[in-house]
Order: sequence, then C-alpha cells, then structure tokens
Amino acid sequence: MKDIKIGLLGFGTVGAGVVEILEKNAALLKNRLGVPLTLAQVADLDISRDRGVSIDPVLLTTEAAQVVENPDIDIVVELIGGYEPARTLVMAALACGKSVVTANKALLARHGEEIYAEADRCGGEIFFEASVGGGIPLITSIKENLGANHFHAILGILNGTCNYILTRMTQNGESFGAVLKDAQEKGFAEADPTFDVEGIDTAHKLAVLIGLCFGSIPDFRNIYVEGISRISSVDIDFARQFGYVIKLLAISKRSENGIEARVHPTMLPEDHPLAAVDGVFNAVEVVGDYVGPVTWIGQGAGRKATASAVVGDILQAARNLRAGVRQRTAPLGYLPAALRALPIIPMDDLMGQFYLRFSVIDRPGVLGRISTILGEKGISIASMIQMKRKADSQVPVVMMTHRTREAAIRAALERIDSDGVNCEPSVLIRIENSDSD
Amino acid sequence: MKDIKIGLLGFGTVGAGVVEILEKNAALLKNRLGVPLTLAQVADLDISRDRGVSIDPVLLTTEAAQVVENPDIDIVVELIGGYEPARTLVMAALACGKSVVTANKALLARHGEEIYAEADRCGGEIFFEASVGGGIPLITSIKENLGANHFHAILGILNGTCNYILTRMTQNGESFGAVLKDAQEKGFAEADPTFDVEGIDTAHKLAVLIGLCFGSIPDFRNIYVEGISRISSVDIDFARQFGYVIKLLAISKRSENGIEARVHPTMLPEDHPLAAVDGVFNAVEVVGDYVGPVTWIGQGAGRKATASAVVGDILQAARNLRAGVRQRTAPLGYLPAALRALPIIPMDDLMGQFYLRFSVIDRPGVLGRISTILGEKGISIASMIQMKRKADSQVPVVMMTHRTREAAIRAALERIDSDGVNCEPSVLIRIENSDSD
Repeated sequence: MKDIKIGLLGFGTVGAGVVEILEKNAALLKNRLGVPLTLAQVADLDISRDRGVSIDPVLLTTEAAQVVENPDIDIVVELIGGYEPARTLVMAALACGKSVVTANKALLARHGEEIYAEADRCGGEIFFEASVGGGIPLITSIKENLGANHFHAILGILNGTCNYILTRMTQNGESFGAVLKDAQEKGFAEADPTFDVEGIDTAHKLAVLIGLCFGSIPDFRNIYVEGISRISSVDIDFARQFGYVIKLLAISKRSENGIEARVHPTMLPEDHPLAAVDGVFNAVEVVGDYVGPVTWIGQGAGRKATASAVVGDILQAARNLRAGVRQRTAPLGYLPAALRALPIIPMDDLMGQFYLRFSVIDRPGVLGRISTILGEKGISIASMIQMKRKADSQVPVVMMTHRTREAAIRAALERIDSDGVNCEPSVLIRIENSDSD
Repeated sequence: MKDIKIGLLGFGTVGAGVVEILEKNAALLKNRLGVPLTLAQVADLDISRDRGVSIDPVLLTTEAAQVVENPDIDIVVELIGGYEPARTLVMAALACGKSVVTANKALLARHGEEIYAEADRCGGEIFFEASVGGGIPLITSIKENLGANHFHAILGILNGTCNYILTRMTQNGESFGAVLKDAQEKGFAEADPTFDVEGIDTAHKLAVLIGLCFGSIPDFRNIYVEGISRISSVDIDFARQFGYVIKLLAISKRSENGIEARVHPTMLPEDHPLAAVDGVFNAVEVVGDYVGPVTWIGQGAGRKATASAVVGDILQAARNLRAGVRQRTAPLGYLPAALRALPIIPMDDLMGQFYLRFSVIDRPGVLGRISTILGEKGISIASMIQMKRKADSQVPVVMMTHRTREAAIRAALERIDSDGVNCEPSVLIRIENSDSD
C-alpha cells in the first residue's frame, strides 16, 4: 500500500482544520503510520471561498456522492453536520466499503442504530471521536482502555457555548441575554443558538456516550432536555452562597431500573472536578466499577481541537487498513448482538436534592404556606435563605431540599404556583452532590 | 478461535485485581470481544497465600518461565515489577510470540528501548497503559487519538503517595515526617518510601510519557529528579500567600534545543487544573499544537484502578489477536525508525520563575546583602514577603523572582549560603505559571 487516501465531505471550519493538519503535520503522521495520508478529494457546496488553507483546486467538487463512490478513496470523513444529506452519504460510504470518520453527534444521536448496523453489515468501521468533547480523547478510551468496567455514571460539560455563557454570568454577574448577544457578535455563539443554549447539542452528545458506556442506544426523544436560557444571575448568586456553581450538565446513571438520561442546569459543589471547568472548555467524568471516577478536560470545540480528533480517527482507520483489518472494535465497543435497550427512567422517579426559589410578597404567613405545601408532599428542607424584609415588596425565598423524589417536588411547585403564594413561577435547579447520589 | 488465554506473572495486589475482573466482569468482556478471556496460568513465588479471589489451584505455579513458554497462552501479563526477572521474562515472552501487557514503569524507563525493539523484531505487541497514571486512560489516547499533534508539554502528578502527603501537609499543616509515618502505618506508603517520596517513581513514568509524546526515549539518568522530603509546611504556607499550591510535578517541554525532563516540587497557581487534584489522585496534562491542553484526572494506583487498565490492555491485545493482527500500532505510537534521540536540556539552562526562602537573622544590612548578590547575577524580584522583625532571631525572607535562568539562581544561592548571610541553606522551589512558560 503506497498511501492512504482521504475524501472529505464538508469544507467548513473543521474541514479546513483537517486539511491544515494533513499538510502541516504530514511528516509526523507518516512517522506514526509508515505511509502518507493523502487528501484525495474534498466536497462542499461552496468550492470558491478561501478557507485559509492551501489546496489543489482539482481536488474540490460540489458533488459529495463523487467522493463517496470514488474507488481510490479509503477513508471518508463526514463533516457536513446535521441529519441529511449526512446520513445518506455516511450510509453510502459504508456500503461502498469505506471506513468512515464523522464528527456528527446529531446524526449519531438520531440515526446511530441504523449507522452502526450498516457498518456491521458491510464489515466496515465508523469512528466518531470528534462528536463528543471536540479534541478530548474519550471515546476510544471508553471502548478500549476502560472496557473492563461496568459504568455507573456519566457527567459532562459538553457544550462550550453554554459553559462560556454560564462562566461569564458567574464571574461578571452579567445576564444570560447580554452574554449571549456579545458571544454572537464575537462569533462564539451561532446566530440561531437554540441547539446550544436549549441543551439539544449536549443531549446529542449524551446519547452517544450512553451507547458507549452502557451498550444501550437510547431513544433520543426520551432524554430529558432543559437549557440554560432561564437561568438568572440571582440563582447563580444564591448557588454561590450555598457553595455551588451552576453548569449545564449531561447526566446519565445506571441503576437496576434502567438509566437516567438528562440534560439540565445543575448545581455542582465548588470542589467538584467539573465545577472549575470554565469558558469554552468541556469536561467529562465517567465512573466505572473498577477504575472509579475518571475525568477529562479539554477544548470541546473549535477548528484546531476538533480537527485533532478527526485526524486521530483517520490515523486509527488507516492503521487498521494498513494492518489489513476492518471492524477490529465494534462502533460502540460492544458487539452488535450484545447491545441492550435499557429503559430510560422517567424524570418523576428521579431521586435527588433540589434548589428551589420562590418570589413572594413578604407578608406574614407566606413562608408558612410554602412550608405546609412542601411538608404535605413529604419534602424536607436542608437549608434556606430568606432575604431581609421589604414591606409588601417582592423578595426571594431560597431553599435546598433533602433527597426527595422529583415527582413530589413538581407536584408541590405546581400547587404553590397555582395557589397565588408566588409572584413569579418558582424556580427549580437540580443538585448533583456526588457520584453516589 | 475459541477463547483467548491469559498468563499472569505476579499474583500480588494488582494481579489479584486482574483475576477478580476476569471473573466478575467475564460476561461484559465477552460482550465486548466475542470470545471469553480465560485465565490459563498464574506464576508467583508465593502460591499459598489467600488473595481474596477465587482461583483454581491447578493454575498456580512458582515457575514464571513456564507461563512464558506455555504454548497455549496468547497474552502474558507482567505484574512482578522492578527490573529483574521482569525484564528477562518480558523479553522471553515477546520472543515466544506472545502479546505482552505490563504495568512496570521502572522496567520501561530503564529498558524500554530494548523491549520496544524486541517487540518490533518479533512482530509482537506490548501494552503498558497501567504503567503511568494507574487507571487513567492516557497512553492509548496519546498514541491514537492525539496522534495528529506535535506535543509542546507534559505536566503530571504521577505519584499518589507524594500527592497524598502534600495534600495533608497543605490542608492540615502537618509535617512531612508526621504524614509519612501515618501513611506508612495505614499502608498508603511503603515501608521504604524512597522510590515514591524522592521522585524516582514519578521520573520512571515521565520517561514513558516522553517516549510517547516526543518519540524520543530519554536516557533515564538525564532526567532531573528532586523529591518532596525537604518540603516544609513553612513553604506550603508562603505558597498559599502568593496564591500557589505545591505539587510534585513531572514536567517535560519540547523546544528547539531539545526537551526539558524534570521531576521536582513545583508551585502551581491555585486556578491551574492540576492544583485541585488532591489526595491519592493522579493527573496529567499534555499540550498539543492542535488539541491544545488536555487534562486527565483519576486514580493513579490501587488494586482496582490499576487492574482496570491492565484488563483494558488485555482487551486491546485480544481484539488484535481476534482480528489476526499484531503490531497494529508501534509501542510508542511512532514507527521504530522514526524514533529520535532528542537531547535533554541541562537544568542550568532552564528559564522560569523561582520561589526563594532565606532564613536570616534580622539585622540591618542583611536584606541588602541578599538583594545585592541576586542583582549581581541579574535576578530581579517580582514580589517579597519579609516577616515582622524579631530582634536578633531567625526570620524567613521569601521572594518570587521574575523569569530567569536556573544557573543564575543556583550561583546566587551558593554565594548567599556560603556568605554566612543565611542561617540555614536557602530553599528554592520552581514555579510553573502556564503552558507557555
């Protein structure tokens, strides 16, 4: 084999990063692999825009199908993103016997089952290290080095935009809206930030991690998703007074009844390893029965870091091709026949501690009403902050509950909100205290 | 292939952990691999002691060579530790065509070159994820997922005993000697703690990481090693006043002139990702040209976590055997022919910031003498703490320098110590401020 040929689908930010690495670090890659990695073809709808990297124009095409069907190409790299045409192209590339590398978490979250099955059917391989945590190397580790473990839990900060916004809100006391606007102006946040700030991107990545850790491909619609757009500086301040920071976390835990699978703003103790992960950095903690907790921290997005992960996958695919082996490791690290559909536990059944904030007119009896309703639902309060009285004006009352069932909390809040005790809808933030929670 | 057969050399703490995982998580491992992993033979000098795991006595032998030569065995796992007989047995296992898994950092630091060459010659494979950072999955990641990067720097907390001692000294103000004694009584520290507390174990692990990141196998004797036995609570307190914590760090950085390779107590800014890694936990940060900084945190030692890494390696070796491939990836991730002997930069040439502590009799002119000597060597002071005067008694004077060359600092301290200004030898602790330092 003289060289290994790469076909690229999507010549955007990350694609340009991949082209740059293949050129700038070509000698290093050859020193690791023994043969050159050659960029053979690049498809994008726009093949005229300058991406700031040098590329022979003859390699460019607007026809992605040409790349997929090109018999010279060994490895197809899908960096288009989204569901279609990415899905059709990935399926076709696998059917053509290519190894596939993708960074597309949305695709895997929605169509993973079909894609992994197609890889198995074709005897092909699909690599997707860049789909979760950008440059952070965790997917191969979960499949290989941590493969001896039954996993108990996954905790992740998986969206740089959300973490950047929450960090600035925490450090500077800015509002969600102000930071988002500034981030959009600076190009850190998308013009339509819904996928990021509403937690959907995080949930896509959690779906991939659940498959890897638990050998169960979740139905994406059953993952609970709540974003950060309703987090206010008030709650960040109160969290700090209790010794917590607020992060958008992806959480999944394995229990006898199935798995929890949820994305929501979460209060983390200040000394938790993920609490100090700020700005655009991502971090993941998994807990295995033998390894205990393992935490990774690194750049979860961006041209260079994501391209690092993509080229790492190309290197792995190429090593397998060089060795004459495909499908050395199944896509999720479990043999297809060993995958199980574990039920996702309903949020109502979640047990945990909760932060509650009520906005009340500070009149005698108001606190008593709230306490009575909580008590009726069997919820006990671990600590409370009531701001000093301002006659007849709105004041926040903040409580941290003991461990309780989410259904009880929701019922109590519904009652309180409909009872007119509250001037504004009450605020609920889940607390994550430890791995054993 | 019906099953894959494992031979174990060394039935100590980690060996018993491996036996336990192979039994307890057998179904999981089969779901990942497709065939069972069967423990075929276990060698130890003591085959009568109860290790708390069930094992068929017929598998036990006192003759390690029997395991190595056993034609039924596919993968030999070396958990004896130390240089000999581990070296001879590993070389023999490779020569017999076995895949080898080892957790032995001392062996790799001293005899790595010979062992990697033998693996290459025999077309065999050697896996050593457990040799650095215990259960933390970083070695495969550096070889595969981060393989697209030129690395700039490695920073590691690699010895749990040292980190445990420094953490207790920091949190409780205890002395080195008191914590060590207690740790020995509790079994956290060895009866002879020299390898741990004097930094040798950390340096062994750094040698392995240097090979992986820089493709250069260092001469172990050229790694600068300084342990923690001379760290006093006084210095930990002053560090805190300047916003730093003291950790025993393994540090290697790549520059045009070669690589830095050093192990020493280091002052880290409190907000550095490694500063919060406490107790027996280990952590490693590498910085690549594309991925930027990546940090791993986890359990760096102990029966269960280390066994997790060993069985992860067994799984990788077995996946290769199942796929009919050996030597898919070279031991260090670089092809043997691409390995380079990079020079290790002498400590005198190190550029950095330094913490200095002098014990002086507080008389007029003393501070002037010290300042004059530092000035003559071109050392400028960034900040200083001088404790309040106690007439004619010994007081500490503490300084943080600007960036300077280590040779200048050493010359100045030698001069100050020999000049009689100082009541006790001056204390020097290196400061690590950022990846770009």
